[in-house]
Amino acid sequence: MRKQEELKRLISVAFGRENPDVIFTNCSIFNVFTGDLEKKDIAVCNGVIAGIGDYADAADGAEVKIVDLNGLTVCPGLIDGHIHIESSMLSPKEFAKAVIPHGTTAVVTDPHEIANVAGISGIEFMLEKTARLPMDVYFVLPSCVPATPLDEAGATLSASDLEPLFKRDRVVGLAEMMNAFGTVRNDEQIIKKILSAKAAGKVVDGHGPGLAGNELNAYVAAGVKSDHECMTFEDAEEKLRRGQWIMIRQGTAAKNLEKLMPLFGEKYYTRCLLVTDDKNPGELISLGHIDYIIREAIRLGADPARAIRMASLNAAEYFGLKGKGALAPGYKADFVVVDSIESFNIRQVYYGGELISEKGKLTDYVAEYIDENDSHGNEYKSVYNSFNMPEVTAEDFKIELTGSSRRVIGLVPGEIFTREIITDTDTSKDAERDIVKLALIERHKNTGHIGIGFMSGYGLKKGAIASSVGHDSHNLIVAGVNDSDMAIAANAVRANKGGLAVVNNGRVLGSLPLPIAGLMCEREADEVQCNLEDLKNIAADLGTAKGIDPFMSLSFASLPVIPELRITTHGLAKVDTQSIVPVSF
Amino acid sequence: MRKQEELKRLISVAFGRENPDVIFTNCSIFNVFTGDLEKKDIAVCNGVIAGIGDYADAADGAEVKIVDLNGLTVCPGLIDGHIHIESSMLSPKEFAKAVIPHGTTAVVTDPHEIANVAGISGIEFMLEKTARLPMDVYFVLPSCVPATPLDEAGATLSASDLEPLFKRDRVVGLAEMMNAFGTVRNDEQIIKKILSAKAAGKVVDGHGPGLAGNELNAYVAAGVKSDHECMTFEDAEEKLRRGQWIMIRQGTAAKNLEKLMPLFGEKYYTRCLLVTDDKNPGELISLGHIDYIIREAIRLGADPARAIRMASLNAAEYFGLKGKGALAPGYKADFVVVDSIESFNIRQVYYGGELISEKGKLTDYVAEYIDENDSHGNEYKSVYNSFNMPEVTAEDFKIELTGSSRRVIGLVPGEIFTREIITDTDTSKDAERDIVKLALIERHKNTGHIGIGFMSGYGLKKGAIASSVGHDSHNLIVAGVNDSDMAIAANAVRANKGGLAVVNNGRVLGSLPLPIAGLMCEREADEVQCNLEDLKNIAADLGTAKGIDPFMSLSFASLPVIPELRITTHGLAKVDTQSIVPVSF
Repeated sequence: MRKQEELKRLISVAFGRENPDVIFTNCSIFNVFTGDLEKKDIAVCNGVIAGIGDYADAADGAEVKIVDLNGLTVCPGLIDGHIHIESSMLSPKEFAKAVIPHGTTAVVTDPHEIANVAGISGIEFMLEKTARLPMDVYFVLPSCVPATPLDEAGATLSASDLEPLFKRDRVVGLAEMMNAFGTVRNDEQIIKKILSAKAAGKVVDGHGPGLAGNELNAYVAAGVKSDHECMTFEDAEEKLRRGQWIMIRQGTAAKNLEKLMPLFGEKYYTRCLLVTDDKNPGELISLGHIDYIIREAIRLGADPARAIRMASLNAAEYFGLKGKGALAPGYKADFVVVDSIESFNIRQVYYGGELISEKGKLTDYVAEYIDENDSHGNEYKSVYNSFNMPEVTAEDFKIELTGSSRRVIGLVPGEIFTREIITDTDTSKDAERDIVKLALIERHKNTGHIGIGFMSGYGLKKGAIASSVGHDSHNLIVAGVNDSDMAIAANAVRANKGGLAVVNNGRVLGSLPLPIAGLMCEREADEVQCNLEDLKNIAADLGTAKGIDPFMSLSFASLPVIPELRITTHGLAKVDTQSIVPVSF
Repeated sequence: MRKQEELKRLISVAFGRENPDVIFTNCSIFNVFTGDLEKKDIAVCNGVIAGIGDYADAADGAEVKIVDLNGLTVCPGLIDGHIHIESSMLSPKEFAKAVIPHGTTAVVTDPHEIANVAGISGIEFMLEKTARLPMDVYFVLPSCVPATPLDEAGATLSASDLEPLFKRDRVVGLAEMMNAFGTVRNDEQIIKKILSAKAAGKVVDGHGPGLAGNELNAYVAAGVKSDHECMTFEDAEEKLRRGQWIMIRQGTAAKNLEKLMPLFGEKYYTRCLLVTDDKNPGELISLGHIDYIIREAIRLGADPARAIRMASLNAAEYFGLKGKGALAPGYKADFVVVDSIESFNIRQVYYGGELISEKGKLTDYVAEYIDENDSHGNEYKSVYNSFNMPEVTAEDFKIELTGSSRRVIGLVPGEIFTREIITDTDTSKDAERDIVKLALIERHKNTGHIGIGFMSGYGLKKGAIASSVGHDSHNLIVAGVNDSDMAIAANAVRANKGGLAVVNNGRVLGSLPLPIAGLMCEREADEVQCNLEDLKNIAADLGTAKGIDPFMSLSFASLPVIPELRITTHGLAKVDTQSIVPVSF
């Protein structure tokens, strides 16, 4: 009955028989269906657009709120089609506070990181914490937890674990199917996960860097409908031709926009989205979110209308987000007010017809609303107490080198792949040849597993650096020049229930606590960013190399899916053979 | 389990580990996503496309069927987004046999006509009769049965009658909401029907000729997502801007293509479909179906790639037809082989990878398959015995003209609207001034209601013509010069359980039996067309005017939604006031 009454009122308002709640007038409305600007009014009722037409005059004298937009341009609210909120290190609410001023009114998030720590409970936590935000957070379910058999994650998510979650309203698909190798080889669990998503009428997102030819055919035939890993236009074009939607990614770790600019051409743009994948808090503040990608695209020559459509209507249509992505009757009144579509500077952001941000700042009542509504979901113990490991001691980092040769993980500046370097076992010269010890401590299930190895190119000359952010299992990773500082750094992160720490001479020089699953914190984006910058400076004082981000380098050192050599909780792993290899031989 | 095994095999075939069932090679494949042609092979497995790539070489020597397409072009099978199959006068199977050679591999049909005769049972009959065709027939549920309160239809379909049908797989929406007037005024039943469709995740089609401004806003706000009644580009553009998909209609009764050509422009074409609405069997044979609209559009200057996309991908995306509308992995292997996309002459048609038509003719085994599989659904008594009325006599057509003036329905050549003409009551001069008697006999519920009036401009000089095809209630309509021939004509149609009849001097000169609900027959399209042409010639011999189709004119004479004056079973109706008015006053 409520739905009936709501719909009737909407129709009456659209028709002009009843007054809207708000009328927006004196504006150019960007029509995402045709790319035109229309000088009309927007009548809003119950947070939904009733009509785009002539309403302001009709409401003269009536008790209805009229908002004069001073001739500015109104565009649909922006949608990020693929992001891991956890990678911002911000709690969902702080993430929302950071991105809303940039015009983001919806994101599709893959809670892959927290799921690797806390499993279904982690996903439920994210659903709960995003349920009352002034922004729509949709979910795609993590398809690959753990990422590989070599990983020791906090959880293993089988097809039957995921299946019930597909029925949730805000769950719109199965997330990036990273195990493309297994998909095209009929891995039983993958097939089941895909069929669950399809049976629920939801999409399956892809992750197929460089996948082509018949392997791509097999991946698409399996039902994988998108890709956000295109690094060249040719790659994107082939995937688009096979029916995939292309998510043009411009985030912190990966920036593909420039190479993919041809996708803004007439032949392609209707099946492309704009996404960030991962964004650190600093970039969110200084550059922006999807609005930044739109501005960048325009700067690189894109038709603004097409860029905006990718960031709104296309995302909504690909994921089937009802009532999102356009300004038309029956759509949610989520929109941004900009100077012009060419400059795309965001002046105001509206969600459900309410002003939620102005001049880059959340309105006070919205900031308060968000804070007040964050009490739900605080009972998730596995999220707030995600460390299940004892304190470590310097003894734990001892390693006996029996052979004459030694494998070392070689960092490459500006890249996330690593090289396998073979050197001798004389550790006394490690400082002068830029080799540090690297350890990965299992932290989820108290197994006591600690993998130990060596890494070169990190630059660290003194002390130790530890982090609980380590793709994809997020165990506790420590790099250090001496075992004792390594133990202190690891224990500092453990004591904070997660985060980053930098130690020298037995003293913790700085830390960034990330108590939510060891990945996120409740502090605001700018505070987190300052804290992070401080830590990087401290790390630089200890010698970390200039061309690298010391924490991002650590977070990728444990990712056993990108060549060549990585650290696991069982020791060094060769990526190509997916096998554990001895450090010394 | 079957789904898992099927998917695994599809993936294996795509990858190249297993052989496909068929490989199509030596062809240019039209890629509907980008508008390009690609010289590749199509690997098909279980009726589904596994891959578009290089497969022919790999299969050398293996036991796999290889089809050489001689360098021709392959395009997705065509989809008619809005048609009433009943209007072809052909049974579903004969309709399929007529349209398949034109490349149609899917239609979305609104069984509005049969529903007005036989209600839910009529819809079930159509679902049953289309379940085993080599063509996908999707349904939108008739939204307005009866069409108006003035109609005496065979059934009344309430929201609760329709509700369970929305759960059916092939039901994809609620059909053209003709009662736009009621929709924007919150008619309770309409609101409920719309909410049922939405709750089931299905679309609501529109029918809003000329609807604009706030009335259009209200109609779209109600949830109506498409329109096929646009007669001008301006009308279409406004609807498209408000979020509706535009169905460009080029059928037998209405031809809007030429006026709507601007919709093939870059700004519009991604949200347009091609539809026919109504097609008579003659046009299906002589002109074609959706293929004809594509050729016409190209002739009028459209980019072939855009026209084909409208007729395939766009229709599939609007209605959410899974696996239809493109040639890509995971899509059904439904396609047409054409000389070129520019000429669009259809050489072959494939459905699920099987050749079903070649050089304009169904392959023998498909024709047989269709015939053999038509035995289901023959038990629908209300469909096969849809006449529930006694024989009539000349007496039944008597009318007393009490006043001095008389209202006459004035036909206008080439138009479906009529004029109200006022003349005297001296019927003795009617022959010379081209006025005939017109009667509408209620035939569904044995009410004995007969509405009697007069019509001018029909041309008939002798005898009588009767038909059970009369929009939208399909009662028995008769026009005649004398009451006795009118009774004979009506009884002839009744005896045939429906159809058309032409009578003179007490003799039935010709008839076309339409025993399925009084609307369709089991004969082939060309036979029906010949029969119909014969009848038209006989009617012409009796004097029917040259500029009109005597049967189509009759079928619209009872449609009380188009101005000005119409016949109902209760007498003459003025359309603007929706009221019954006396013939003489």
